[in-house]
Amino acid sequence: MSFPWPDPGTPLAEVPTPMPVLDEDRLAANIARAQDYMAQHGLNFRPHIKTHKLASVARQQLAAGAIGLNCQKLTEAEAFAEAGFDDILITYNILGPARLARLKALNGRIGGLKVCADSAGTVAGYADAFDTERPLSVLVECDTGGGRCGVQNPQQAAELARMIASRPGLHFAGLLTYPAPGGAVAVQAFLTETMALLAADGIDCPIRSNGGSPDLWNAHLVTAATEHRAGTYVYNDRAMLRAGECGSENLAMQVLATVVSRPTPGRAVLDAGSKALTSDLLGFTDHGLIESLPGARIRSLSEEHAVVDLSDCNGPLPAVGAQVGIVPNHCCVVSNLFDRVVFHRGGIVTRVEPLLARGTVW
Amino acid sequence: MSFPWPDPGTPLAEVPTPMPVLDEDRLAANIARAQDYMAQHGLNFRPHIKTHKLASVARQQLAAGAIGLNCQKLTEAEAFAEAGFDDILITYNILGPARLARLKALNGRIGGLKVCADSAGTVAGYADAFDTERPLSVLVECDTGGGRCGVQNPQQAAELARMIASRPGLHFAGLLTYPAPGGAVAVQAFLTETMALLAADGIDCPIRSNGGSPDLWNAHLVTAATEHRAGTYVYNDRAMLRAGECGSENLAMQVLATVVSRPTPGRAVLDAGSKALTSDLLGFTDHGLIESLPGARIRSLSEEHAVVDLSDCNGPLPAVGAQVGIVPNHCCVVSNLFDRVVFHRGGIVTRVEPLLARGTVW
Repeated sequence: MSFPWPDPGTPLAEVPTPMPVLDEDRLAANIARAQDYMAQHGLNFRPHIKTHKLASVARQQLAAGAIGLNCQKLTEAEAFAEAGFDDILITYNILGPARLARLKALNGRIGGLKVCADSAGTVAGYADAFDTERPLSVLVECDTGGGRCGVQNPQQAAELARMIASRPGLHFAGLLTYPAPGGAVAVQAFLTETMALLAADGIDCPIRSNGGSPDLWNAHLVTAATEHRAGTYVYNDRAMLRAGECGSENLAMQVLATVVSRPTPGRAVLDAGSKALTSDLLGFTDHGLIESLPGARIRSLSEEHAVVDLSDCNGPLPAVGAQVGIVPNHCCVVSNLFDRVVFHRGGIVTRVEPLLARGTVW
Repeated sequence: MSFPWPDPGTPLAEVPTPMPVLDEDRLAANIARAQDYMAQHGLNFRPHIKTHKLASVARQQLAAGAIGLNCQKLTEAEAFAEAGFDDILITYNILGPARLARLKALNGRIGGLKVCADSAGTVAGYADAFDTERPLSVLVECDTGGGRCGVQNPQQAAELARMIASRPGLHFAGLLTYPAPGGAVAVQAFLTETMALLAADGIDCPIRSNGGSPDLWNAHLVTAATEHRAGTYVYNDRAMLRAGECGSENLAMQVLATVVSRPTPGRAVLDAGSKALTSDLLGFTDHGLIESLPGARIRSLSEEHAVVDLSDCNGPLPAVGAQVGIVPNHCCVVSNLFDRVVFHRGGIVTRVEPLLARGTVW
């Protein structure tokens, strides 16, 4: 019953499919590339662990120069704290007595915990749960055009910052945003205006945290920011490739799959369905890129099958039993489906690592 | 670090979110409703465990009269065999020495294992791995219009059946198909014609296995079938509701979520994103149904957030901290994201159960 995870030294051709595999060299290069860019522009870098959920990759990111980690939920932060990480920003409103009790326990365990708030209700919850003995650091989340969470304008941001700064159990740590694509100008304006309002009130605003892999290489345009957060850059995916944010040589994740059926000359069926690739389209109309089969199109997914249209392929077509690699549309959601991932270097397995905090509970 | 799973007796309002919750009464009614229909029409019923991956639900399905289980991959079949189930049909082509060795071990453990094949290559793999001491039962998968796996016509089906029947280590067990929606007439024709070809050859074809929840209530139209397979019917979801296959009273799964932000009067943000609901659209343009908020529209998902457009809602709008229930577009993929699910009766938690064979490896 135990699953045959591949031993180091196994060729990828013998790895059980469907399986996400990570190229060690490309991963290391992606980490270095982003960190070098941030260093060049004097920005702190805070990688988001949602993409990998792997302790070893987080350690590589910090070793390269990242200042800390970004988590999206309490279970992630708990798991990475347990794995020895101390500087963790949870970019989320944390609500309710049960979560706040866990947050307080976590704040007692690590020194560098930070969370965010975008409403008076969220701040009130933090203020009730924390005290001066071990204050909680809180950033104000700003909606600079992303249209998700966040206060809507600099006046609201400054008002919430004042509220945080006035509570004895809370420490106002700064501002954060997850911008719309191409939102550098809007982020810069929002941050600058809010900082002016806070300065007029004598409120210190040490962290201005900007984010996103899609705008990673424009992070330097937001001179008002002190740090940048990004997750996807570490693996990259088909959406990042299309956006010109990376080249083929930066694609560190593939999902290996096996051709399990060739019902017609123009159709192949793979053993990687929506439970391996997810249904994330990110604007594509098909479900991943098979670099080894130019013209192939993964036209539909069911839960454990991908149906591939081969009718526009010119080269040799894969037979039943052949292995193919798929660059997923979106790498972050693929990681979340698997309990472990396989690393390789040059097509030879180097190691298998369990994911932390997989299983979606918050 | 241990996650606060709710104890029996906990009100749903206190369950950590995002969390799939299952209504025990609706679940039992869905099981009885489908089984009664099958019994009325003299069809054997073989529930697909992909939807729930829960031993207790599979036991309820068998107790109601199901003849066995349907699994989609080897890890699922291994886990349900371990949990004590004996009659398991894996509706998949199983390829490669590693998988075939595991399949052989499984065939030695349970008496009622069956698999399928749609190519000579797959049959050859089975034939090489199995022998007369413990033959493997193999069904021929037929593409009756579904456009996924399967032989393309009755002549190919009969040819593959002959090949299976001629191998000493294999037992030809019958035909199976996963039809296109509304495909009853095509399935009936394909099965009838293939059965005639096999009869002319003196080859017994004991099982004719038809499938699908979307056509569950038309299963009786395929009089050539001996059994029907279905998974989604046990929970139902928004897609089944839209198709008229169930009513609101048959929706046994909801994903509980919390409003974590109300950035604007018309926008709420929930803590259930694509890592809780998946991005499966199944023809919808939004991401689930909030029955308690008529007019609300889950317009976008990021990994841990859902953005809800409330601008067409007339009733009272939820505040930060409020809990809402989401009927997912597609229930089967939601189960796959969580390690455990919470059962309730009338809004009071009855139990928490771990899923079997979650984690996507095959």
